[in-house]
Amino acid sequence: LVTIERLLAADRDATVAAVMDPDPPVVAPGTHQERAAWAALHHGEPGLAVVDDDGRFVGLIPPQRLMTVLLTEHDQDLARLGGFLGTASAARQASTERLRKRLWHRIPWLLVGLAGAMLSAGLVGAFEDALERQVLLAFFVPAVVYLADAVGTQTETLVVRGLSVGVPVGRVAVRELVSGLAIGSLLALISFPLTVWLWGDADVALAVGLALFAACSIATLVAMVLPWVFSRLGADPVYGSGPLATVVQDLLSIVIYLSTATLIVG
Amino acid sequence: LVTIERLLAADRDATVAAVMDPDPPVVAPGTHQERAAWAALHHGEPGLAVVDDDGRFVGLIPPQRLMTVLLTEHDQDLARLGGFLGTASAARQASTERLRKRLWHRIPWLLVGLAGAMLSAGLVGAFEDALERQVLLAFFVPAVVYLADAVGTQTETLVVRGLSVGVPVGRVAVRELVSGLAIGSLLALISFPLTVWLWGDADVALAVGLALFAACSIATLVAMVLPWVFSRLGADPVYGSGPLATVVQDLLSIVIYLSTATLIVG
Repeated sequence: LVTIERLLAADRDATVAAVMDPDPPVVAPGTHQERAAWAALHHGEPGLAVVDDDGRFVGLIPPQRLMTVLLTEHDQDLARLGGFLGTASAARQASTERLRKRLWHRIPWLLVGLAGAMLSAGLVGAFEDALERQVLLAFFVPAVVYLADAVGTQTETLVVRGLSVGVPVGRVAVRELVSGLAIGSLLALISFPLTVWLWGDADVALAVGLALFAACSIATLVAMVLPWVFSRLGADPVYGSGPLATVVQDLLSIVIYLSTATLIVG
Repeated sequence: LVTIERLLAADRDATVAAVMDPDPPVVAPGTHQERAAWAALHHGEPGLAVVDDDGRFVGLIPPQRLMTVLLTEHDQDLARLGGFLGTASAARQASTERLRKRLWHRIPWLLVGLAGAMLSAGLVGAFEDALERQVLLAFFVPAVVYLADAVGTQTETLVVRGLSVGVPVGRVAVRELVSGLAIGSLLALISFPLTVWLWGDADVALAVGLALFAACSIATLVAMVLPWVFSRLGADPVYGSGPLATVVQDLLSIVIYLSTATLIVG
């Protein structure tokens, strides 16, 4: 790759070899557009050469196109994380689009969410007896759900960003699982004495601590598996984060917490 | 703005006026970098001219710089939404960085989250009497919390994207609030008969419906106010989304639902 600017600025008797980039950013025609943009940037080149399997030059991607790609991908990621429908909802347009169209992009995910919410009420209801006997257990349902979700969201962010620039899930999985276990242990170790101190019930505190450990560790796993599944299905891995992952994780957290609690408190 | 490519491709006797872009993308030196990148893209130009208050040319931003800006901003937005600490955590590096450093970037937000979680348990506990009398109320705590959160996240996405490209909150506020009211009403109207049908208690169903309406409407408001506050304080509005907004919203949803329920179920 040699830019016209560098060509014009070169000495009259310099060879092309002296002004060109000997290791230009190249991508295959099948490369995902976001990964291609990263490649160009990594080389500090404004453009990007596309070559076929034999290394023959196929075409050049100009900088304007690369920038458009990056912005579109960014809007898409955020829209999908935010629970907007599909690609039509680049949030820039969404922020000024008309009311009916706006609702149309938002309501599908919310209806899925409503179904998940009703399911969550059913799951809590399955532990009615334990809750009747010890109402204190009900206090910590939103706490466990929220924290497991926060841990899962961190992992999703990491995995989705990794996937979009070509870092496979496998390369981060082990370290990320260890992180999840470490974070789960930490939250359990802090929450146990805190709960005993504030509410004075060691059994409930133990249930909360164990559930936090289990739910946060499992949240890490779910947050890696969902984007990976979507990526394998050829869909944008971001779909495996955001609202869908939150529902799945919330339902798991409720079951983990209340079954632990039932085992301990009886 | 005239690119060397266009200059070389022009006729020998064409004037510069004929090949230049008569309305080039210009920004002031104080313009935020992300907004500047959008301006270049909007014009379909690879570069961007920086001019001072009197319209005098100050400098040119090359395409590589603009691309770097876009990628950095994207990583930053996602990292902050995901609950990572600060700017150091561009998730691309985060996905391969070492365990200790990774935990260091994640734990601060989780400790804030733990404090919020304990507070949420305290809030649920404030309604202990109502829960003792009618345990069915406890079933719907995660449902209301989850749905209000999903609605708020959609609004945040929209507002944060709007702010980063220069659409002020004021321009979207009214329409967004109307959306929030519409979505709240819809979820209330669907959930009421569904709850009566599945759990057979009209009082609890009424409490769930009214709470969903109120919580989703207020979630829209919170989701606009928080990023706006951060933006006014000169911080990245994305801080007003993600984990912090979730805690604030969850606590509000719990209070809204359980006080509505106490009023109705007594």
